[in-house]
Amino acid sequence: MKIAMVGLGKMGMNLTSNLVANGHEVVAYDIFEESVSKAVQRGAIRGKSLQDIVAKLETPRVVWMMVPAGDVTEKLVTELSSLLNAKDILIDGGNSNYKDTVRRAKQLEEQGIHFIDVGTSGGMEGARQGACTMIGGDKEAFQYTEKIFSDSCVENGYLYTGRSGSGHFLKMVHNGIEYGMMQAIGEGFDILDKSEFNYDYADVARLWNNGSVIRSWLMELMESAFSEDSNLDDIKGIVHSSGEGKWTVETALDLQVSAPVIALSLMMRNRSLESDTFSGKVVAALRNQFGGHSVETNDI
Amino acid sequence: MKIAMVGLGKMGMNLTSNLVANGHEVVAYDIFEESVSKAVQRGAIRGKSLQDIVAKLETPRVVWMMVPAGDVTEKLVTELSSLLNAKDILIDGGNSNYKDTVRRAKQLEEQGIHFIDVGTSGGMEGARQGACTMIGGDKEAFQYTEKIFSDSCVENGYLYTGRSGSGHFLKMVHNGIEYGMMQAIGEGFDILDKSEFNYDYADVARLWNNGSVIRSWLMELMESAFSEDSNLDDIKGIVHSSGEGKWTVETALDLQVSAPVIALSLMMRNRSLESDTFSGKVVAALRNQFGGHSVETNDI
Amino acid sequence: MKIAMVGLGKMGMNLTSNLVANGHEVVAYDIFEESVSKAVQRGAIRGKSLQDIVAKLETPRVVWMMVPAGDVTEKLVTELSSLLNAKDILIDGGNSNYKDTVRRAKQLEEQGIHFIDVGTSGGMEGARQGACTMIGGDKEAFQYTEKIFSDSCVENGYLYTGRSGSGHFLKMVHNGIEYGMMQAIGEGFDILDKSEFNYDYADVARLWNNGSVIRSWLMELMESAFSEDSNLDDIKGIVHSSGEGKWTVETALDLQVSAPVIALSLMMRNRSLESDTFSGKVVAALRNQFGGHSVETNDI
Amino acid sequence: MKIAMVGLGKMGMNLTSNLVANGHEVVAYDIFEESVSKAVQRGAIRGKSLQDIVAKLETPRVVWMMVPAGDVTEKLVTELSSLLNAKDILIDGGNSNYKDTVRRAKQLEEQGIHFIDVGTSGGMEGARQGACTMIGGDKEAFQYTEKIFSDSCVENGYLYTGRSGSGHFLKMVHNGIEYGMMQAIGEGFDILDKSEFNYDYADVARLWNNGSVIRSWLMELMESAFSEDSNLDDIKGIVHSSGEGKWTVETALDLQVSAPVIALSLMMRNRSLESDTFSGKVVAALRNQFGGHSVETNDI
Repeated sequence: MKIAMVGLGKMGMNLTSNLVANGHEVVAYDIFEESVSKAVQRGAIRGKSLQDIVAKLETPRVVWMMVPAGDVTEKLVTELSSLLNAKDILIDGGNSNYKDTVRRAKQLEEQGIHFIDVGTSGGMEGARQGACTMIGGDKEAFQYTEKIFSDSCVENGYLYTGRSGSGHFLKMVHNGIEYGMMQAIGEGFDILDKSEFNYDYADVARLWNNGSVIRSWLMELMESAFSEDSNLDDIKGIVHSSGEGKWTVETALDLQVSAPVIALSLMMRNRSLESDTFSGKVVAALRNQFGGHSVETNDI
Repeated sequence: MKIAMVGLGKMGMNLTSNLVANGHEVVAYDIFEESVSKAVQRGAIRGKSLQDIVAKLETPRVVWMMVPAGDVTEKLVTELSSLLNAKDILIDGGNSNYKDTVRRAKQLEEQGIHFIDVGTSGGMEGARQGACTMIGGDKEAFQYTEKIFSDSCVENGYLYTGRSGSGHFLKMVHNGIEYGMMQAIGEGFDILDKSEFNYDYADVARLWNNGSVIRSWLMELMESAFSEDSNLDDIKGIVHSSGEGKWTVETALDLQVSAPVIALSLMMRNRSLESDTFSGKVVAALRNQFGGHSVETNDI
Repeated sequence: MKIAMVGLGKMGMNLTSNLVANGHEVVAYDIFEESVSKAVQRGAIRGKSLQDIVAKLETPRVVWMMVPAGDVTEKLVTELSSLLNAKDILIDGGNSNYKDTVRRAKQLEEQGIHFIDVGTSGGMEGARQGACTMIGGDKEAFQYTEKIFSDSCVENGYLYTGRSGSGHFLKMVHNGIEYGMMQAIGEGFDILDKSEFNYDYADVARLWNNGSVIRSWLMELMESAFSEDSNLDDIKGIVHSSGEGKWTVETALDLQVSAPVIALSLMMRNRSLESDTFSGKVVAALRNQFGGHSVETNDI
Repeated sequence: MKIAMVGLGKMGMNLTSNLVANGHEVVAYDIFEESVSKAVQRGAIRGKSLQDIVAKLETPRVVWMMVPAGDVTEKLVTELSSLLNAKDILIDGGNSNYKDTVRRAKQLEEQGIHFIDVGTSGGMEGARQGACTMIGGDKEAFQYTEKIFSDSCVENGYLYTGRSGSGHFLKMVHNGIEYGMMQAIGEGFDILDKSEFNYDYADVARLWNNGSVIRSWLMELMESAFSEDSNLDDIKGIVHSSGEGKWTVETALDLQVSAPVIALSLMMRNRSLESDTFSGKVVAALRNQFGGHSVETNDI
């Protein structure tokens, strides 16, 4: 199948390689020409502009966007919607908020353009070797493009999840679970680290990946991480987040689901971004006020 | 009434002044002679040793301990138990773990010594001007000493709570609630602080103390704290804890009570003691492993 | 001062009585005529319609809305904006989301209408006897109406907080703190309730209100509640929420403030709305899968 | 190697089968003779009493206990310590608290008996087909028994973790992580369940096990659970816990590690044991007191 890939970052580039390796023709485009050249070296067809990639595809055209969620996706959808025609298929493989996806699908539907939302998991390696995709949108459009997913994903690694938004929603929740699992693993190793015992963390992670209840890909990644840096001495525990965890918590609040583990996973990330907190200052000030407990002061 | 006060720290000294001002004779003792002299200046009788204070009291003797919980209290109870006689009354006004209190009461009971556990709230000012006390132990012993409590506490500020341990247990839970309230207040001001608006926190605290649902002594203390340091610029948000919050959480776990707010209040204090966390490092390492998200590294 | 009160529910009715008692002329209106008649009995002037109340006021008119946040407020603002003129002052005393307030203020400003957002705390009694208000919006409009606030609030119980939205924002955070305090108090009594001791909760609440660190209006209310129903046997622990707590958590997430206590307070309320949870089923199913732990089944 | 297995419950029976299948001679004993007969049918040697199994082993004897933690383990260790001799090796494969393990190891060491603590993961299937074991205690005793572990565990599925207690400590933390992961998965499916979309959960779990970041054995178990009961309609979300999660939280508090996710996972289990909470009643009563919010009452 001939498709266009717009956005050649870590994920888009790897997906391009993946699709090319599976015999698809990929017209690759990015605002950074260097990235396009790299994709061409990997077997893609050079896309010179959005107009150019649209021209280079046959109808119904299939365009896969792999760009940052939010403004970039919004602009790109708008531009592409003016270039594409009825029956064409636009795929958003990024981490868009499902509410935006529902809105965009409705807008594009008015032009007869099919919008498919694809939540993509598996990291960079997955994008290259075999991803995991959650696919929402028009069912016929999915069926028309199914071979792209069956080829680029691991076995049983793609699922059509229903109407527009359901793919991105499922990916959002997947990431929420991921946040919780990661924080659970982090807390566990933190307890080991402060314990009276003396564990080799790479050994522990390897052990836990062989036969234990918590064996998982995340634990395998920790095995790898500890093998490279046995006590993580080189890195700081500052953890950013990219949106899906926050949306998961907001959605949980909207749906009145108690999701303390996902919420706290996110809040501990936010806590890690600060070296000191105003809430801590308030509590320290209170203890000083009523109990005369000394406070630690900032040097002047 | 004539009683001994053992332990002349912030709380014990203020209680001594309070009792003296209310017409009681207080034999004051502390391992720091300087503190004893200070108490004498405030109207107390000098206690030279544990033997001495016991000698200076009439039977049944009443000895109020106001010393740190744990080892210090344990040793003092042991020593005093060898000096006191049946019918004497030993009061532990510190923040002892109620399980220790139950055990000590049983041991002292074998000698016929009455042990009264007193949870004391209200901070230093309360100790001086009128405390709030939660009193467990033998009921007759409480009745014999009731005037001490009615005189040293604010009106309606003392309560006999039942058998040994019930006073310290109630104080423990009081402190658990206090942890939760303080963290709630801290989080609220933290949100104000990061908001787009520009509040005067002393004004806000004063307002909230006049007619709002959250008016409280803690908010009055914040009014005072913000009046002294309008943005708490001078202090660090490093918050230690002294045991009762932890015991409250442990007790909640023992009793299978869900107490997330008290638990999290304590955990955020513990978090404030660290500039970086191993759990954060693990999560950062994981994100780097699967997503290629860059990590912040420690300078070498 | 002559003002109109639109919305005569629990809060609006009490505010009307309060303002009348303080010598203000209040044109009262509600969609329920019965409520209007009740207000008239309490000394208000009958408002027959929005048109009528606007007609009965002198310019610059002052209209205080005390209606549910969301759709009702939105519609009312739209209708009133077509009836009011430049220089008139519209007050929203409800629990509106501050983002809506900012938007509405901007829209009304285009017509020259001043919009004042008032967060009102203190409950029904406060509305009647002396409220606590947090007031955002145009400063001159605030100054023009200040006497309304100074008369209807307790001493030091009103504060001008700055530009539009700041009043509702502050009230939102106030409620977030309130959620946390309430949950902390709830957890504390829950631990007492499952303990080995036998407390009289009304006595405990009274004690804690006299000299303790956690003395507060909320604890006074618990004293009252326990006096009426000593073990709360008559009520269920099902706790709804009205929006501000959720907005506080969402705002905390937006501002990347760690606010676990407020978040968990809300989530425990949401948990109380369910008799069983799907998350619990999943965990029970998992334990059964790997450990053969029996699950409790639903009767058929 | 010839060893004794004491305790033939779900785990002990499966381990016995496992060891027999790997060519070891297992003297099996349980207080239920029926269980012993079942083990004999599976190829074990009948143990008639503790004395009998000790008599049937050669020195240095190796006895593996697989019994419930707490009192049962305590009594068994005491009895066996009077039957075993110096150089013999006693293995505790149960979920004992590591503090008990450290104490027991010290006591047994005085008699020259080696005590090995083995945390066993992998569930019943693991015990039968290949477990995962974390092994603390005397290193030479471990080396003497290593073949038992290498044969009964999956490849790379056993690890010597250092001195006494380190095996049980590691298993405890493993379970803490497990609690967190399970709750994260539960919350995720709960959000899906309340969403506007219509997912097939067995399909979702299968998908997530193929290429996603959260692929894990726990998710495989959910795939299996949802295949059997697609919406878990038949089971209740009541989740008990067996100790290790609680110990993990207590240890985290002792070590001042912030472990909110593990703590909340446990607290949500505890919450699931109650149909109503006293904390909820308190919060409902408070809302009623200040806001006149109606409470739901119990039918009389």
